[in-house]
Amino acid sequence: MPKRFAPAIILSHPQLGENIGAAARAMANFGLADLRLVAPRDRWPNKKADAMAANAGHVVAAARVYESVAAAAKDLKLLFATTARDRKVAKPVLTPAEAAKRLRAAAKRGLPTGLLFGPERAGLENDDLSLADAVVTIPTAPDYASLNLAQAVLLMGYEWYLAGDKTPTERIDHGIGKPATREELFALFKHLEDELDRAGFLYPPHKKPAMVRNLRAMLHRAALTDQEVRTLRGVVTALVKDKQRKKLREKG
Amino acid sequence: MPKRFAPAIILSHPQLGENIGAAARAMANFGLADLRLVAPRDRWPNKKADAMAANAGHVVAAARVYESVAAAAKDLKLLFATTARDRKVAKPVLTPAEAAKRLRAAAKRGLPTGLLFGPERAGLENDDLSLADAVVTIPTAPDYASLNLAQAVLLMGYEWYLAGDKTPTERIDHGIGKPATREELFALFKHLEDELDRAGFLYPPHKKPAMVRNLRAMLHRAALTDQEVRTLRGVVTALVKDKQRKKLREKG
Repeated sequence: MPKRFAPAIILSHPQLGENIGAAARAMANFGLADLRLVAPRDRWPNKKADAMAANAGHVVAAARVYESVAAAAKDLKLLFATTARDRKVAKPVLTPAEAAKRLRAAAKRGLPTGLLFGPERAGLENDDLSLADAVVTIPTAPDYASLNLAQAVLLMGYEWYLAGDKTPTERIDHGIGKPATREELFALFKHLEDELDRAGFLYPPHKKPAMVRNLRAMLHRAALTDQEVRTLRGVVTALVKDKQRKKLREKG
Repeated sequence: MPKRFAPAIILSHPQLGENIGAAARAMANFGLADLRLVAPRDRWPNKKADAMAANAGHVVAAARVYESVAAAAKDLKLLFATTARDRKVAKPVLTPAEAAKRLRAAAKRGLPTGLLFGPERAGLENDDLSLADAVVTIPTAPDYASLNLAQAVLLMGYEWYLAGDKTPTERIDHGIGKPATREELFALFKHLEDELDRAGFLYPPHKKPAMVRNLRAMLHRAALTDQEVRTLRGVVTALVKDKQRKKLREKG
């Protein structure tokens, strides 16, 4: 999704340059680039913001400064305000994931969107909340709810990114091999079971079928690659050889 | 869920005390309390960690120090390692949400679990990865993937917390009123429409039904509370009165 569809991040009355820089970094982590500052307390541009932004300097450099939330948000067609705790406003309160879904849906329709964050300590004032379509509250442990500004931006950016991310919930990195074919796996079973038979491990005979099934279950569960099957066959061979060498030595 | 079922957070070879303190704070935000440090580079206990932890000082104070990842994880029955980028290990790679689901499921069965994080710059070594059941990779913008240690702990803690959180995706805070009954809403419709009829707004007559439907749709969409219905009726009355006053003044 091109960057122009990503939500604008509006920081209302931010205090420390460091926090603006850290917010910019969090934005870059999740592909956000449109930073808007409403009446930053300290001088702008701000060296501490630049230093903290590190590689995300482009986000800080492109930041625009406004006099009011209304001015910063005037081109937006969907605006959500983040708050730590519940406010007494009859406004929909969304989870971050639900907000992210709606931002993506609006972006797909070509609508400019934004996320509004309050100053470090106080959070958003009710007057600013009244300019937003809905409120987003980040769930936290009730006895320790304080998130700093950059953390709040990070979590909202993360959810926005996730809402467009197609990474499967589980995948195996087969950089070092492809999944073994059943033929390769069955050959390993046979190799191991033959050697264990020879070693007298699969004994007594009436217990052998269950022992074999258990061994195969373990190997199946490991979801081996072709390379790993070869490694394990080498392991079996090495152990057998070592035993034979020992026997020879003992005899010798 | 009692804290003993929450995953242990293992920081392998952390460098700066500040980062340990920031990680402890992120843990507290999401109800995590079991912090384990493997060979921290700087002196431990560490004043900078205490200062950065702020209200999460209890997490830092209870942290235990180990010589190796193996020692720190020895009591755990499920261990996931977080990495920024893909590694050449044939190991399942999970999304944070999937990992969180599995940690919760293991905790429900009474199994102690953990999340392993590498040092600030280098990330986890392959030897440490080899001790984990699976790898978790936090999705980020490909051109800006670097998360700091506390950010990684924050995002994993957030996902763990979410996996047990039952907040509805959307709710309305009716602290200042209950949803209006249909009777209250219909009375508002009638009040507004009567006054608009009197004012000549619902004209010409053949357009009146559609105009009324549009007005009602807007008011429905707003999902008004009982208090808000009263406020809007007051607004209508005030505008009518003002108009009447003006007329009187003009006549007078």
